[in-house]
This record gives sequence, C-alpha cells and structure tokens, in this order.
Amino acid sequence: MARVLTFGELMLRLSPPGYERILQSPRFEASFGGGEANVAVSLVKLGVSAAFATRLPENALGDAAMGELARQGVDTSWVIRGGERMGIYYCERGAAQRASKVIYDRKHSGIAEAKPGDFDWDAALAGCEWFHFTGITPALSEGDAALCLEAARTAKAKKVRVSCDLNYRKNLWSAERAASVMRGLMPYVDVLLANEEDPEKVFGIKAEGSDVGSGELSREGYEKLARRLAEEFGFKAVAITLRKSVSASDNGWSGMLYEDGQAHFSREYDIHIVDRVGGGDSFAAGLIAAKLGGKDAAGAIEFAAAASALKHSIEGDFNLATLKEVEALAAGDGSGRVSR
Amino acid sequence: MARVLTFGELMLRLSPPGYERILQSPRFEASFGGGEANVAVSLVKLGVSAAFATRLPENALGDAAMGELARQGVDTSWVIRGGERMGIYYCERGAAQRASKVIYDRKHSGIAEAKPGDFDWDAALAGCEWFHFTGITPALSEGDAALCLEAARTAKAKKVRVSCDLNYRKNLWSAERAASVMRGLMPYVDVLLANEEDPEKVFGIKAEGSDVGSGELSREGYEKLARRLAEEFGFKAVAITLRKSVSASDNGWSGMLYEDGQAHFSREYDIHIVDRVGGGDSFAAGLIAAKLGGKDAAGAIEFAAAASALKHSIEGDFNLATLKEVEALAAGDGSGRVSR
Amino acid sequence: MARVLTFGELMLRLSPPGYERILQSPRFEASFGGGEANVAVSLVKLGVSAAFATRLPENALGDAAMGELARQGVDTSWVIRGGERMGIYYCERGAAQRASKVIYDRKHSGIAEAKPGDFDWDAALAGCEWFHFTGITPALSEGDAALCLEAARTAKAKKVRVSCDLNYRKNLWSAERAASVMRGLMPYVDVLLANEEDPEKVFGIKAEGSDVGSGELSREGYEKLARRLAEEFGFKAVAITLRKSVSASDNGWSGMLYEDGQAHFSREYDIHIVDRVGGGDSFAAGLIAAKLGGKDAAGAIEFAAAASALKHSIEGDFNLATLKEVEALAAGDGSGRVSR
Amino acid sequence: MARVLTFGELMLRLSPPGYERILQSPRFEASFGGGEANVAVSLVKLGVSAAFATRLPENALGDAAMGELARQGVDTSWVIRGGERMGIYYCERGAAQRASKVIYDRKHSGIAEAKPGDFDWDAALAGCEWFHFTGITPALSEGDAALCLEAARTAKAKKVRVSCDLNYRKNLWSAERAASVMRGLMPYVDVLLANEEDPEKVFGIKAEGSDVGSGELSREGYEKLARRLAEEFGFKAVAITLRKSVSASDNGWSGMLYEDGQAHFSREYDIHIVDRVGGGDSFAAGLIAAKLGGKDAAGAIEFAAAASALKHSIEGDFNLATLKEVEALAAGDGSGRVSR
Amino acid sequence: MARVLTFGELMLRLSPPGYERILQSPRFEASFGGGEANVAVSLVKLGVSAAFATRLPENALGDAAMGELARQGVDTSWVIRGGERMGIYYCERGAAQRASKVIYDRKHSGIAEAKPGDFDWDAALAGCEWFHFTGITPALSEGDAALCLEAARTAKAKKVRVSCDLNYRKNLWSAERAASVMRGLMPYVDVLLANEEDPEKVFGIKAEGSDVGSGELSREGYEKLARRLAEEFGFKAVAITLRKSVSASDNGWSGMLYEDGQAHFSREYDIHIVDRVGGGDSFAAGLIAAKLGGKDAAGAIEFAAAASALKHSIEGDFNLATLKEVEALAAGDGSGRVSR
Amino acid sequence: MARVLTFGELMLRLSPPGYERILQSPRFEASFGGGEANVAVSLVKLGVSAAFATRLPENALGDAAMGELARQGVDTSWVIRGGERMGIYYCERGAAQRASKVIYDRKHSGIAEAKPGDFDWDAALAGCEWFHFTGITPALSEGDAALCLEAARTAKAKKVRVSCDLNYRKNLWSAERAASVMRGLMPYVDVLLANEEDPEKVFGIKAEGSDVGSGELSREGYEKLARRLAEEFGFKAVAITLRKSVSASDNGWSGMLYEDGQAHFSREYDIHIVDRVGGGDSFAAGLIAAKLGGKDAAGAIEFAAAASALKHSIEGDFNLATLKEVEALAAGDGSGRVSR
Repeated sequence: MARVLTFGELMLRLSPPGYERILQSPRFEASFGGGEANVAVSLVKLGVSAAFATRLPENALGDAAMGELARQGVDTSWVIRGGERMGIYYCERGAAQRASKVIYDRKHSGIAEAKPGDFDWDAALAGCEWFHFTGITPALSEGDAALCLEAARTAKAKKVRVSCDLNYRKNLWSAERAASVMRGLMPYVDVLLANEEDPEKVFGIKAEGSDVGSGELSREGYEKLARRLAEEFGFKAVAITLRKSVSASDNGWSGMLYEDGQAHFSREYDIHIVDRVGGGDSFAAGLIAAKLGGKDAAGAIEFAAAASALKHSIEGDFNLATLKEVEALAAGDGSGRVSR
Repeated sequence: MARVLTFGELMLRLSPPGYERILQSPRFEASFGGGEANVAVSLVKLGVSAAFATRLPENALGDAAMGELARQGVDTSWVIRGGERMGIYYCERGAAQRASKVIYDRKHSGIAEAKPGDFDWDAALAGCEWFHFTGITPALSEGDAALCLEAARTAKAKKVRVSCDLNYRKNLWSAERAASVMRGLMPYVDVLLANEEDPEKVFGIKAEGSDVGSGELSREGYEKLARRLAEEFGFKAVAITLRKSVSASDNGWSGMLYEDGQAHFSREYDIHIVDRVGGGDSFAAGLIAAKLGGKDAAGAIEFAAAASALKHSIEGDFNLATLKEVEALAAGDGSGRVSR
Repeated sequence: MARVLTFGELMLRLSPPGYERILQSPRFEASFGGGEANVAVSLVKLGVSAAFATRLPENALGDAAMGELARQGVDTSWVIRGGERMGIYYCERGAAQRASKVIYDRKHSGIAEAKPGDFDWDAALAGCEWFHFTGITPALSEGDAALCLEAARTAKAKKVRVSCDLNYRKNLWSAERAASVMRGLMPYVDVLLANEEDPEKVFGIKAEGSDVGSGELSREGYEKLARRLAEEFGFKAVAITLRKSVSASDNGWSGMLYEDGQAHFSREYDIHIVDRVGGGDSFAAGLIAAKLGGKDAAGAIEFAAAASALKHSIEGDFNLATLKEVEALAAGDGSGRVSR
Repeated sequence: MARVLTFGELMLRLSPPGYERILQSPRFEASFGGGEANVAVSLVKLGVSAAFATRLPENALGDAAMGELARQGVDTSWVIRGGERMGIYYCERGAAQRASKVIYDRKHSGIAEAKPGDFDWDAALAGCEWFHFTGITPALSEGDAALCLEAARTAKAKKVRVSCDLNYRKNLWSAERAASVMRGLMPYVDVLLANEEDPEKVFGIKAEGSDVGSGELSREGYEKLARRLAEEFGFKAVAITLRKSVSASDNGWSGMLYEDGQAHFSREYDIHIVDRVGGGDSFAAGLIAAKLGGKDAAGAIEFAAAASALKHSIEGDFNLATLKEVEALAAGDGSGRVSR
Repeated sequence: MARVLTFGELMLRLSPPGYERILQSPRFEASFGGGEANVAVSLVKLGVSAAFATRLPENALGDAAMGELARQGVDTSWVIRGGERMGIYYCERGAAQRASKVIYDRKHSGIAEAKPGDFDWDAALAGCEWFHFTGITPALSEGDAALCLEAARTAKAKKVRVSCDLNYRKNLWSAERAASVMRGLMPYVDVLLANEEDPEKVFGIKAEGSDVGSGELSREGYEKLARRLAEEFGFKAVAITLRKSVSASDNGWSGMLYEDGQAHFSREYDIHIVDRVGGGDSFAAGLIAAKLGGKDAAGAIEFAAAASALKHSIEGDFNLATLKEVEALAAGDGSGRVSR
Repeated sequence: MARVLTFGELMLRLSPPGYERILQSPRFEASFGGGEANVAVSLVKLGVSAAFATRLPENALGDAAMGELARQGVDTSWVIRGGERMGIYYCERGAAQRASKVIYDRKHSGIAEAKPGDFDWDAALAGCEWFHFTGITPALSEGDAALCLEAARTAKAKKVRVSCDLNYRKNLWSAERAASVMRGLMPYVDVLLANEEDPEKVFGIKAEGSDVGSGELSREGYEKLARRLAEEFGFKAVAITLRKSVSASDNGWSGMLYEDGQAHFSREYDIHIVDRVGGGDSFAAGLIAAKLGGKDAAGAIEFAAAASALKHSIEGDFNLATLKEVEALAAGDGSGRVSR
C-alpha cells in the first residue's frame, strides 16, 4: 500500500450547534482539524496509508488529539509531544447570505514553537511515496517554515514526490513574507494545488478573465494560470479547485488538473453545503490517492472533484467519504438514492 | 370510523445526530419504524382507525415499542409478545451527493421467528375495511411469508380490501424468491402500490421509456406499466410513486393512480428532504385514507402525493402530518407561510 | 449614539430541536422573543442604543428574561416587574411544503395585564430619538392599547419620531377591533411598516395587481399602496417587506421604502431559511438604524433588506447580525465565502 | 384486572438539564406530570388498569399529553378536550443544601376552567373498583371542587372505594378555604393519604411529639394522628408518608398505614434522590395496588413504601418502577446489584 | 514495554442519558465495551502494551469499533472481520435502591460465530508476556469455547502467563455447562480472578462465613476459598474482588490477592458510583499491570483495588484512569482535591 | 446600594458533560469564570452592586464574555477591549476518589498582556465601598502585578476597603515570586481571605496542629494562624475557608472569621458536591456582602459559609444562589424540602 507523510498543525475545533452563532448557546461541538491532518485522514479513508507529523502538548487535549488521529487510522509515530498548548479554532457555520466564520486562537501552539531539528525527516519519510504540506505550516512561525524546508528537501533527496497546497492565510502572514517563503519552497515541489485566488495572492500570478467575486470562472484563464505556474516553478502538475460561491449554502464545485501541458476539467457539482471546511484538503487527498493509484489526469481530476464534493456533505474537517463512495460518485451516481 | 389492519415488523431505528455519519459522535437518536407500522401511524394522523400486528420481545425495548405505537394512537391489541430481540436499523442521513445509508440488523427478531398460527387473523380483521402489508414482511422469513398468506386469504374471505406495497429489498431475499412468493400473494391483493423500480425487480415488468437513474420519467410508460400489472394480476387499482432523485437533499415527488383503466397523475412537488425514510409508506397511507374517505381517483392521488410530500419534511419514519395539513397542501397551499 | 425606545411583550419561546414537531421528542430549546424586543436587540447589534419597556413577572423566568435582554445589550431600565406569568410561544420550524407553526400561550401575562399609568413615558422617552411599537402590543389587551396611545402621544409631544409595524395577528383580535384601535394610533405615527398583507387586513387598503398566495408581486401595486397609506394617514414614510413564499425553506425577500412621494425597492435576496421568525422585526430595526444613521431612502431600504435577509439565516427571534455584516451584504457581498 | 379512575390536572413539566438552575442554559427537558395522573401511570406499571380524567386543550400540546398518557398505558377515554391552555410547571432539581424549586404557571388551564357537568362520572366509574383524587384538584378552581364532589359522590353511590391524598398547596388556596372544601369532601372518602404536615395544615390536626423541620418523627405521634383522623372523619384507613429531610440529596423515607385501629410502619429507606417529585403519588399508587391485590396492612405499607422509595430514583413525575421491581425491594433486595 | 493479549467480545453499548430508564427519552449514548476489551484498554492507560483479538462485522459499526480500540491505543492487528452483526447491550444506570439493568442482544455476533482456526494464536501471542480471557468468551458459543482452549493452550506452550476472570453469566449458559467448560480451561490458567460469588456458581466452591446478599464478608472465608481454588486447580495466584453492595449508588470496594499461600487484602474504598460496569475488568487490568511491573503481592492488590475504585467514577466500560492517578490513589490520596 | 469593584481575569470554561473525562465525548459545555468575576457575579445575586474590571479581546468570544457579565447583572463599564485571546480553562468534574481536574490555557490573554496605565482606577473606584482582588491576578504577568498595586493603592487613597483572597496557584508562579509580590500588596489590604493552605504556601505561615491532607483541622490552630497574619500585616480581618476533603463528591465545609482579636467559626456543612469550582469566591462574596450589609462577625461568617455551601450545589463558576436562599440557609433551613 502506498504511503504518504503530511506535516502541519492539528487544532481543536470548537463549533456551536447547528446554525447558531458562536456562544449563542453555551455549548461547543469539539473535533479536530487542520489542513495537512485533514489530508492524512482523507487518504486513509481512500485506502492509502498515511502518517501525520506534528507537535502536540503533553496534556489531556494532546492525548485526545492523538487518539482521534489513531481512531481515523492515521499513523501517529511521527507526532512529537511538547509545547504548552494546542491551537484552537472556532468555526461558525453560515447559511444563505451569512458566511461561515472562523476565529483562530492558534498562536503559541506546540507546533508553532517547534524548531528545526525537532523531526527526523529521514526516518519519517522512509518508505513514503509522497510528502504533502500546505502554505499554512510555513506561515505559523519561522521555525515551521524552516521545518517545511527541511522536510521538502529531504523528500526531494529521497525521490519522494512533494505536493504543496498554497492555502494562503492573510491573518497568519503578509503577502510579502508569504511570497518570499513560498518561493523558497517551490523548487522542491512536484505538484502544486491551489484555489482560484491563491496564486495571485502569493505569487502575483492571476487567472485572467475570471472574477472570483462574481463566481465567473473562465476555463481558458485557469489553464493559462496553471501553465504559467508550471513554467515558472517547474511543477509536474498544477491542480486548482474551482468554487462558484452562490451563497454560504450552495456552491458550484469542480477542479482542474494541468499535467503534461494539458488542462483537464472535472464535471461541476451543485453542492448543498453541510460543512465546507476541509473541502480543499479533501481535493488534495483525492488527487494524491488518484495519482498513487495510477489514474490518468482525466480520471484523477474526476476522482479528486468527487471526493471533495462529498466532503461538503460531511460534518467536521475530515472527509469521511470512503473509497467506494468516491468511486461511485466519480462514476456518475449522484442521485442520492438510499443505500440499503 | 373506518378501520385498517397492517402487519409487519417494527424496528428500533438508531440515527446519528444531524448529518453525522454512523458513530461519528457517540450518540444515537432512537425512534421506531417499519413499513407497515409507518402506514398504521400515518393512517391514525389522517383520522383513520388503525391496528398493527407484529411480534415483539418481552423486554424493555419491546415495551417501549408498544408504548410508542400507543402514543401514536395505533391499536396494539394484535401485537403478540415473544422472541429474543427486536430488529434494529441504523439510518444515516445523506445530503447533496452523499446518499442516505441504512444498515439493517433485523435478523432473528421476534417477528422474523413468528410461525403460522401465531395470529388470530379472523379476530384481528373483524370490523376492518382494509388490510395492508408490504413486500418486506414475506421477505423476513418463511414463517412471515406464510403469515402474510394467512392474513391476505382471511381478509379476502372476509371481503376486507387488501393492499400491498411491493417494497423490494435486495438484502432480504433474492429476486427469484421474491417473485415466487409475491406472485403467490397477488391473487388476494386489490390495490398494488410500488415505486418506479419494484415492478421490474419483482415481476420483471418494466416501465418503458423511463430511466430511473437519470430521473427521466415517462407518463405513458408508467401508465402502460400499471395497465400491464392490473391486467396480469387483476388489481382493482395500481398506485406508483414517482421520485426524481436530483440529489440526497432535493427530489421531485409525485404519484400516479391507475384505476378503472385510467391513469391519474398528481402534481409534482419539489421537495427539500428532512427525512425520506417512510416516504412510500406515507403515500400508501394517504391513498388508503383517501379511498376509505370516498375520494375519487384524481382526488385520492393528489391526497396521497400531498401526504407523502409532507412526510419528507418530518423527522423519523412516521408521517406526523395531520389530516388538516394534508388537505391544505392537496388544495394547493405549499407556500410555507407561518401557521399562527 | 442615537437612542431608541420600543414597547411590547417579551415571551419565552420554546422550540423543538431541529425540524422536529412540537414534543416529538421531550425537549425544548428555550429563548426569548417578541416583536418590539426583537427590534431593540437588533438595533443594539447595529450600533444603536436601545431600551425596551415591558412588564415581567417577579420570578426566575422574569429574571432570566431580564438577563437575556441585558446580555444582548438592551437597556432594561424601563422594564417593570409584576403580574403572574410570562407569555410563552411554541415555535415549530417548517421545511419545504410544511409551514412553520406557532402556538401562543400569551394570555394573562404581566404585560397583558399592565394598566395605563404603569409606565413613566416622559422619563422613558427622555433622550430618545425614536419610539417603535407594533400592532401586536395594542392587540394584547385594552390596557396595552391605552399604553400604546399614552406612549405614542408622549413621543409625538416630545418630537420623538414614531414608527409602527402593523403586524396584524388574527388570533389576538378581530379585524374590526384592529382597525378601530390602529386608526386611533396612526395620527402619532411617522413611519409605517407592514408586510404585503397587513394594510388590507387592518385598513382594508390593498396592493392592487398582486397575489400574495401565488407569490406574484407587482412593484406598481406596492407603490400605489404606500401612496394611499401615506396620503390617508399622513405618514412621512411607508416601508413594506416583500416576501415571495416559495416554500417554508426558500423565499424571495426584498423591501420597499416610500418616502417623499417616491418608492425605492431593494434588491431581492433568495433566502434559504434557518429561522424566519423576527424577519419583519429585523427589517424594522434595519430601517430605523439606517434612518438614524442618515442614510437616504435608497440606502436605507438596501440596508434594511440586507439586515433582514441575514436574520433569516440566524436561529431565534433576535437578529444577531452585526453592523459590519449588514453593511457588507448591503454592499453586495452575499457569496458566503468563509470569513477567517 | 382491577380498574381505577383518577381525576385531576396534567401539566407540562419543564426542567433544566441536570442540576442547572431554571434557564441557566437555554434548554428544558419536557415531560408531563400531575398528582392524579402520576398515580394512574404508576398503577399501570404495577399491573392495575387505570383511567385518568382531565380536560386538555385542543392543540399540539394537548395532543402530546394525550399521547404520553397512552404511551404509559393509561386509558384516556375520559379525557375531554377544551380550554385555552395546559398548566405548566417549571421544576429545578436541588442538591445538598439547595432545595428543589417549583414554579407553577397553571392558572387558566383547561381543567381549571372545567365546569360541573363536564364529565359523565357514572359512565367513567362503571367497572371501577377505586376512585382517587388529591387535594390539589379542588384547589384549582370552584368548578374543580364541584367536580370532585360530583365524582366522589357518584363513586360512593356506586360502592367504588374512594381515596384522597390531602396534598395541601399553599399557593393554590388559603388554609381556610382548603379546610372548608376538604371537610365537605371527606364524607365520601374511605382511605386518606397525607404527608406528615398536611393534616395539621388542612384540618388543624397535628402529629404530637414530632418536629417535621428537624426530621424527628415519633411513631406514637403518627399513630395518634391517624386515629384522630379516622375517628373524626370515619376513614377506613389512613396512610402517612414519613420523610426525614436530611438534605435535598438524601432523605429517610418510610410510611405508616393505620387500619382497623392499628398502625403498621414500613421499614425506612435511606434514599439518594434522583427526582423526588411524585414521591407521594407513587406511595398512593403502591397502596392502592396493594389493597386491590389483597395484601394485608403490613404487606401493603411495605409495598407502598418500596414503590415510592424506587420512585425517588427515577427521572420525572411518573414512577416507572415495575411490579417485579417493587416486589423485589419490598422483599428486601435493595443492594443495587446489577440486573443482567 | 510488557505486552498483553486479551480475547473476547466487543459490544456496542447503548445507554439512556443520566438516570433515565431505557427509552424513557428517545436517545442513547453509544460506546463500546466487553470484559476482555475493557482489560486491554485499561492496560494501555496503565502503560502496558495491549492487543485485543475478536471478530467484528464488515460494516460501519465494526469500523467504528475498530476506530474506538485504536483511539484507546489498543493494537487491533488481531481483530478479524466477518459475521453479520455486533453484539449490543443496553445499560440502564441505577441509583439508590434501583439496580442498574443490562439487556443483552449479543447472539449471532461475529465473534459468537467464530470457528476454531479463525485466529493465528501463535502469531498473536508472539512477544506477549500475558494472555487474559474471561468466562464470558467460552460462554458465547461452542466455537468460542474451543477458541479459548486453543489460545490458552498456545499461551501455555509459549510460556505466556494466562489469567482468567471467571465472570459467570447465567443468561449465557447453565451452571453445568459453565462448570464443564471452565474446568477444561483451568489447567492452562496461572492466575484466577473472580468476584465473591463466581467460584461457588461455577465450581461449587464457596466462601464460608460470608453472606453476599447482606454485604457481610469474612476475610478468613475468602482466604480459605482462594486456598481451595489454588489447591484444586494449581493456580499460582487467586485474586478476588470484594464488593459490599450498600445500594446502587454506594458500595464498599476492596480486593484480595492470594499468592504463595498467603492472602493480601487491599484497603477498602467507599465508592460513590458513576458507572460500575467494567469494575472487575479494571481490577484485572490493575493486577496484570502490577504483576508485569514487578510489584509484590501487597503492592499489586493495592494497585488493582485503587485502579478499580477509580473505574467506578468513570463513565463507560473502559477505565480511563491513568497510571499516575492510580499510583496516587494507591499511595493514599483519595481526598479528591482539585488537580490544577 | 453598596458598590464593589473587582479586578482580574475572566476565562472561557470548557467542561465535558456530566462526569466524563476531557474529550471522552466530543462536546464541551461552555461557560465563563475566574476568581474575581465570580465574586462580582455572586455579589450581584446577593443584592450588592458590582463592577468587574478586566481586558477582553475584540472578537466574538470577548463579546460573549461581556454579554454573560451583563446577563448576570455585573457592570462592565470598566472592561477594556484588546489583546489577542481569552484565557481558557478545561474543567473535568471528579467523583468519589477521582479528583476534579483543571487544565489552564490562559497565557497570552488580553488581561495577561495588560499594562500599567491601561485602567483609570480613580474613575473605576469612584463611588465604590470595596475593592477585591485575588492572588491569581498578580500571578498572571508583571503587568498585572503592577496593575493590582495601582488599583490597591488608589483604593487605599480613596478609603475604599480592600480585600484579597490569597489563592495561590503553583502553576502560575513560584512560591518565591508569590511571596515577594504578595508581600508588596498586603499593606493596602484590609481583609485577607485564604484557604487552609495558602498562608503557608505564600507567606510561610502555617496553621499549627492541623493536617490538611488528612482533613484534620484544629480550631485553635486556625485562630493562631489568623492572629499571626493580622499582626504581621495589620489586617482588620482574616477569613479562612475550612474544607474537609472526604472525597471529590463529599466535603465538610465551614469558615472562620477573625476580627477584633477574636475568631468566629461558622457551622459546618456536609456538602454533596455538584461543582466545587468557585467555592472560595462565593465565600469571599458572602463575606463582603455581609460586612457591607452591616452584619457582625458571627453573622458574617455564617452568611459567608451558607453562601459558599450553596455554591457547591450549583453548576459553573458563578454562585447563582440568591440573597433569600442564603439567608434561609444561614438561618438553619438546610433540609432541602421542595420550594413551591
């Protein structure tokens, strides 16, 4: 079975019940989430062996986080323990015209205070075929940026494929610092993933002819964008998620995979959103699983789009859709008839 | 007041909260459900007296099931107690592209282990105008198939009208066995109910010109289907539910009633689904109530379609919509204005 | 900061969980609500200082109601304590073809048994720029009708602007009594608010060319309606909410403001409903806040429509949308992208 | 099977979760309760057929109340429908030094506004061996006092045994009015039930040598009290519950039955309280069931004490302990070993 | 780190909320439990590596059970998948005089239908120092009895220590069959564990001078009992849990370990019970962990008693008390001061 | 009405449901708490006007904290907004031998990063009769220590009485630093409050003849301790809470007030604990309210002990017991009879 390592932060996620606003009533649903952990969990559900590297505090919360990763089948051998706290994020579900809202309380976490040398990348990557990280991890701290560089370099040296999801977060770092750090990491990256907006925000490279705000997306624009990215940084492939934001409840959702000089677009799904957090991560996991499984570009983008369409119907950060469910949807069965 | 007897299994239904997957969090909402019990409950809400015959174990779960039937106003005089367990089903609510999922754990239940002679059909049917069962009951066990035959025969002999909802369940029996058993029961049936797919699966009789998967339904095809069924088995009426599965969240929903050589189609509802389990049962109850209430074919199919459209907006197996609510919708008020 | 006084009833609101019917399971979510209190809370969220006058019993429920008003930032200095009970209303959420359902148990409440002279309107209105009430309050009892008259007269005398939302409730009084009492109050009203149906029900003045049941609304008809109302009663402005009731889950929603002889229509929102109770109240609050903030008619109606569109996505009677959120939506951002 | 009729009010009971204060968090557990309904439910669990007469409003709450009675197996044939509301009571669970707290909102209920002649007592008591009411019902309104008199007279005339639990509620009526009305009812009563304090409060007849506040109870004093009551009113039997209030969490609990000139005391239970509301009602039901079952005085008081001791361990007003459980405890097995 | 293998059934456990009776309200808390799995989980919390062997169905429930074992840190490598269902048990929490109640629905489970040869005991026991099973597993089916024999024999042959907890369940088999099967297994057992009653029920060997019902326990009697067991079957050690059942809420709890001809008694704890299911299993785990950790008999019995005393304060079957917490209590700190 | 200012931190408190361990199931009950805020809330419930000064972040969590203070009736005029996060604490309820457990995540909070000069103490203390803080606030950061000094000095200068609860937290600072900072604050303190252990931990002054671990407390020892403290620091009064920790479920609880050279002991309560967090704070509030209300030393200590005994029966940090309830208990009514 193929094996993937991801590296990043796992946070405690606190969500009000249903469509309530934060602390409208005095309860939180508690789960865990974070870009790279989401990818690892999703990979396991898709039948790929995955390990997740992070740093968690030595307390009951860190223990619970470890337990949750294990429950989902993720290998936690490369989680190190230390630091004073876990990052937390509060996640309020939107509806219709009201956007979902996220409040981060992730500073000073165990992983944000990790230092170069804390992880034995050579050992962690042994036996792996793929290494994945996102633009969130290097944004957490200088230490984490250095750790990403260590890991990506080690992967490259070991001929482990490397993917990176740009995932620009404006509240974590400035566009300038993001550009500088991410450009330093790109030489080690084989497959770049991004949403419609990130390439412009991070690298100043824009999809022409599209207006993200209005939901108008131009196929040609995205193909050109991917080509420019691939040419500038030498990526083997560029994958982009295409979200038409109709409202907080309804989106159009599809993806594009640019590979060998050609763009492949998935079908577009009309998704009615249960929980959109982790949508991009489930797309990344779908793409990695598809490529590791030997799918061609057209098959891979359909698989990734189907996986991530299903994610939007699932509570929490993690895509709990199974390989069988993703394959059925990718094959065209989205009618939602009861499975008995 | 007209009186109806239904016969079948009542199961404990365990559902995760909201849109969660099974055991995503460690809680279940517990309710009860089962095709024929659903019909009985729905009939009571529509103002018809209904009794339900089954066999429940002598323990706290069986007691709770009895209590729930009584709470809903169903006459439990013909429930016998015995056996080792209740059937259980786990019901996960789908959304958008993710289908609802049902896991059955119903083998070895009290009713599955019932034997011919366990019920005094002559007494149970005394004073009844209608007897209803579905294709699920004979599928449970040979004993239950024999009991269905006993009951249907007795009803026929007592000039009690008999309806049967085909309700084919592939995980309960093979198509071959279903065909054989169901064909043996049809001579006692006056009114056949089915969804778009069951007649083909059970009797090999197909609605021409329709493609269930794609949601394309042809009126003529269904009319022909009903005519063939009526001709082959001598039914007085054939009613078919017509579901356009757009997604797990949204469906088109209507019904057809073929009577006296003519097909009557209800209007079609765009339904936004809260809980679709029991949709067909609520249609059956609506049809029975309408016919007992003296409605003509056109009125009956509108009433049945309205009742079952409302069911899709109600949590649980049981259609808790009232006679007044169904009549209002059948009369055209589906605007959803607040009722104060 | 501008200051507003509203006067009316605050009720305990008991709602079944999710889409359940009343007492389908043995739990209620408890909150508080009532037209004028809803307006006060919404004003506070929109940055306007608001006080709410009512009469609450001296028990733990009355204390909790006081606490909730304070939690929302409403000035409770003019709440008097007394009477034997709080009004209660049970609120069942509808979906699709099933309408939301409200059961009132509000008779004999502290406020219903209030008497003229119970409130010191002169003091309560000191420093206020606006007084708001709805047609519900005078409908509660003769005492409350007299109190509304006292308050409106005092406001007029103090040059405090007065708005009234017609809010006709057929279960509280007859159309005849409503017409008589409301006509007596209109001379003190500067701004009239209403939904599409109230002017006809209360004053017999109808929007021509529209059919509320079918959801067909004619712009010209509403403009004429507003003009007739303004001419007959001398209102400075007339605002009307325009709801296209597609189903209990989906509505079209917009508003019209008639001012200085001209009608201004907001854009129309396709709203997917989380909770529609209090929608009109949030519109009133939006309009009051906009006018107090100096917006012109076109800006005010967009602001009011945006505020009330957002309300439909929020649980409970109170519009918890913030000034910033309303301004963003009024400015056109309804795409529902995650706010991080 | 013996058959009992009880008559009184059934209220909606709203309780905060766990040990929370009223509306500390915005949720209520909803159940139903009321002295005489509690007795009826408990009788059913003890294997006695029971009907309950009351008047409930024609709305979803009244329907739910009917459903709950039916769920518990109580015959609702003599429930009439009408009136504007159900009585409600809020019930906050105490602990240790903090007493449980009850807030009533029961005025203007359907039953409080019932009138003489509303019930057909002759038919309702047909086939009954026992009629039971408490001092709460006549306290609700003059109409209810008259109805109690009607019912008790009819029972007497039909040779149906009559029991009355004094149940004095100071917030419902004055001691003077209670004395006057209750004295008028006593001639029809065969078995009087009371707690330690009621006889003094209602009839001015005190248990000498006991100090209820301190929890000191004198056997002789209670025996004398019962003798005085029996002599003054001609009761066949007098039963008294003896509660030693250590704290809101822990009580001593026993009972006395005075019959044929002799007092019989049950063993005393150290009870750890889950829910003490309905404790006295479960004692009454235990006593009635025991007498109908032919137990002698010593056996009856042990049975009643055991039934009511178990009630204190059960959530809600209703004693859901079964005949088998009560018999086991009365026979001495209170060790709490797991029943598998 | 020492390594232990346990073998048995893991069931889905469904519990009503708080002190409610089964289905009093329509919800279940869902967890997992079963004697040998409980021991494995507890061992992990006490710092011992543990694997659990069982057979679980290939469905979402089996997956969730696997996930829960992994979450708790148990090695699931020896769980095989198959069969049609998981065993279920319903667990109602008692209080005071009301005993906790368990309803089993465990027949026809995957493990009950396992067959000799299904497990590779040689591989599973490789590297293990201890094998543990209870009297429940051989009681499930003949296949499971044979599997226990296979496993115990293999362990013996590999010089892996074997412990068995008698755990007699009268609803699973007769005393006769239990005696016959258990006597066949004893030759492979090094350490026998039992409660006060099991030795008599299974082997007819009684603790003289004690009366379990009354809670009277004689130290000498238990010492003699252990000596007789050790002599008859050649056990290296015999450990007995001593429960004084005051009520369902309060118990006295201690343990005895007989080793090298001498009995060692732990201190006795006054336990206030949160959840007593799994108490004996936590004692077994404590004893195994203590012996593997090199504790002498006196230290081991104090450790086992402390571990299992803590279990009674923890929700669910699993003892989640940590090594540190058990050591602190065994060292005498039971004052319950807040740990900050 | 007397007016009190308190100053400190308000944290978000996250608690697992019931007796569960942290994240045993994926839910938290959310409330707010912190020593000095607890005192302010309790004072309001006891009829004293109270303001609370702190620094809260400008986000939805800070807003909710403000709302909660307002709901409880606390004046929030002196709360300033800023900083990046709120402190959080996780609070796991213990039972029997298992201690309650608290995990703090309070570093880097808004208040911890407050600076001297951030508060206008002169204005905040205007009109106040009392200022209260605890040893937690100066332990949070150097800035907070300096702020305490500012506030205490200002109070002293304005002749506002100052009380301090030592509240030593070993995880916040070393004993050395605590001694140094607290000794610098004592000159401004009039009334010192402490538990049995704090004086030794902070000042090295021990209650002779008592052994806190064993729960043995010597009256003479505590009197001597108070005298030594009063003499060394010049306090007008010293109050000490005396907790006998029987287990996490049951404690003995009383208090001592040393004033004018004499020690007054309250009665001792056997408390069955619902939630012990905030027990000391409720004692402080009780004492302050009693002294402001003019009670003598004996009356004040009984009032404070009664208030804090009741706190242990209430969920959350805040003592929601009312003045009336405290007075009733202080007057001797702890029998827990239902209050109707």
